[in-house]
Amino acid sequence: MRAGPSQEEIRRQNLGALLRYVHIHGATSRAELTNELGLNRSTIGALTADLANAGLVTERTPRETARAGRAGRPSLVVRPESDRVYAYAYSIEVDRLRAARIGLGGAVLDRREAARPPGLLPEDALPLLAALMKEMHHAVPARSVYVGAGLAVCGMLLGDDGPVHVRPETGWVDGPLGEALTADFGADRPVLVGNAADVCAVAEHARGAAVGYDNVIYLHRDVGVDAGIIVGGRRLSGQGGFGGEVGHMVVRPGGRPCGCGSCGCWETEIGEQAMMEAAGRAGGPSGREAALALVEAAARGDAGAQAAVRQVGDWLGFGVANLVNVFNPGVVIFGGTLRDVYLAAAARVRSRLNSMALPAAREQVRLRTPELGDDAALLGAAELAFEHLLADPLDAGT
Amino acid sequence: MRAGPSQEEIRRQNLGALLRYVHIHGATSRAELTNELGLNRSTIGALTADLANAGLVTERTPRETARAGRAGRPSLVVRPESDRVYAYAYSIEVDRLRAARIGLGGAVLDRREAARPPGLLPEDALPLLAALMKEMHHAVPARSVYVGAGLAVCGMLLGDDGPVHVRPETGWVDGPLGEALTADFGADRPVLVGNAADVCAVAEHARGAAVGYDNVIYLHRDVGVDAGIIVGGRRLSGQGGFGGEVGHMVVRPGGRPCGCGSCGCWETEIGEQAMMEAAGRAGGPSGREAALALVEAAARGDAGAQAAVRQVGDWLGFGVANLVNVFNPGVVIFGGTLRDVYLAAAARVRSRLNSMALPAAREQVRLRTPELGDDAALLGAAELAFEHLLADPLDAGT
Repeated sequence: MRAGPSQEEIRRQNLGALLRYVHIHGATSRAELTNELGLNRSTIGALTADLANAGLVTERTPRETARAGRAGRPSLVVRPESDRVYAYAYSIEVDRLRAARIGLGGAVLDRREAARPPGLLPEDALPLLAALMKEMHHAVPARSVYVGAGLAVCGMLLGDDGPVHVRPETGWVDGPLGEALTADFGADRPVLVGNAADVCAVAEHARGAAVGYDNVIYLHRDVGVDAGIIVGGRRLSGQGGFGGEVGHMVVRPGGRPCGCGSCGCWETEIGEQAMMEAAGRAGGPSGREAALALVEAAARGDAGAQAAVRQVGDWLGFGVANLVNVFNPGVVIFGGTLRDVYLAAAARVRSRLNSMALPAAREQVRLRTPELGDDAALLGAAELAFEHLLADPLDAGT
Repeated sequence: MRAGPSQEEIRRQNLGALLRYVHIHGATSRAELTNELGLNRSTIGALTADLANAGLVTERTPRETARAGRAGRPSLVVRPESDRVYAYAYSIEVDRLRAARIGLGGAVLDRREAARPPGLLPEDALPLLAALMKEMHHAVPARSVYVGAGLAVCGMLLGDDGPVHVRPETGWVDGPLGEALTADFGADRPVLVGNAADVCAVAEHARGAAVGYDNVIYLHRDVGVDAGIIVGGRRLSGQGGFGGEVGHMVVRPGGRPCGCGSCGCWETEIGEQAMMEAAGRAGGPSGREAALALVEAAARGDAGAQAAVRQVGDWLGFGVANLVNVFNPGVVIFGGTLRDVYLAAAARVRSRLNSMALPAAREQVRLRTPELGDDAALLGAAELAFEHLLADPLDAGT
């Protein structure tokens, strides 16, 4: 148990709060920062000077047109150095590998993508991601500031203590993935690892469909079904970093066998494989493309595909209703290929919610699709690195 | 978004941290406080003086015997004023009403109990609780400090914003229960309301079976089944204060009708009514005493009772496994009459957990019974008032 912060900690907190504000909200006047952060003008001025010296923000006089009719000296505008301060973001997905260079403020400055060969282990994907990063690195302007990297990995269970534990079905093994991806430059900057659902939840919470909600469930389907969960504004990780494994809630006792060894898990009912089977397409390709093709076929009137979408929609709503009763979330977001299933079967999902969720919780929850689209995983991965910067801007940023 | 704290906020935080330390750990030397709170000696001295002036702590020289063999001036020992600083704790339970006077540090200084007449509404229980409180109040020593009260209510859904929403089956209506119980003395002190599962979780986390765990699920069964859930050290309340309604997770699709309007809810499978039915005792008395009698009958060899306990144990383990996959808790505590069911059917619960929960999460969770026994609800209710004191000791405590 620790007491309140020291003077130095307060300064660090204030620097982080100011930088976070412009990272999320973009260019902001000193007057607005004074108001929003509850600090006086001289403190804002001193903090801004420190951040500017570190190359993290710039200050400009606003253009005259913007202040027509206002008297007095114009308030300086503080901008994040979005072109110069950046993180690398990596994403290991079921069938592709992605890398991006993302500026402070969340702008995608550059991006690369490659196919993930079937069966490629995540540790073997690291050299491929490193190659994508090096391609981008040639174009980085002089005097840029590298703050670190984030890696989003689909279908993994992550421990807080660094070792990466994984699902049986992927065959991935424990290993310090983050460390292996440390670049030659900025080797003292961290590479932070999160699973796809968690980083997407972080991204949508920072600048997407979950802005303004303190209680968020982001559902993600790829290899299996995971959730990134935010409780009271903070990410749920659990005692060892294994929280959010909603795909292994059993929804149908004695149901079909799951790869985890149990039966009737939620992901066996709403997974891509289950959807293919329900459509009579078992044995063919599954995965992301096949799932999206099935939803399209349903939209075109394919009866088998429609039945599959209805069935998966029912089970999707079933699990969501349980989570709504347990968490009383403000918003549930359907990500990955669940986005398309939800859009095709929203009425079934809503119907289940109406019959199963308690009225008080049901009335407070919004059902949404991601606003950041495909970029959520990359933005969220970068956010892991930016969170590290914001915790101590002058140490991590220079 | 607010920046870091002001000087005054830091002092408040430090006062709260010091007082919390002795509230939880009891009498502590200044030297140990210096070490544990990370503050220097003069700051500890000044904070202690402020708290002593407010009548919240005392300082004593330790007895000579306790410091044999140690050189130098003895470190003063700071003690919470447990006999003089107190909160009232109230508990509205299914079949009884309880009130207690609880000292800073968690000692029960006085207590009263009355039967709750069948069908008595909570708002009609308030005058009875107030009468119990007034009985106790005659014996309060002079110069005592009243810091507020907490009220634990079974089976309710609580909104963050004060109005009390309740379950259909209880017939309770919205109402400002907390305000109605404000005493004539200390009318500026709050009466804070929490449901039984939440306050028991808080109490066990502070000084019971969940000490040292940041991720806690406390299951409570009385009218229905609720959970008090702690995530990352903080209570899960949800967007509107309705979180933790685990009793309405559907575990058996198409199962028996629940009072909430859904079917196959967890509490229909592990509730007291379900247990009576499984034992062939439907139609007789249910409730706490009947449930405990049934568990005792099972222990004596009654075959029907044994079958019921096994069946409820299976479903208990089923729901716990789902919660373990979602939350990755460090500890799950079986409270209310679930304590007795768990003790009688621990092997069934553990077996379900082994077959349904993911290994990583399963290996990290401990299954426990409450350590605070019947007092948990009262201690937790008092803790609501003490939390208010600790947030601002000099404002709330004098």
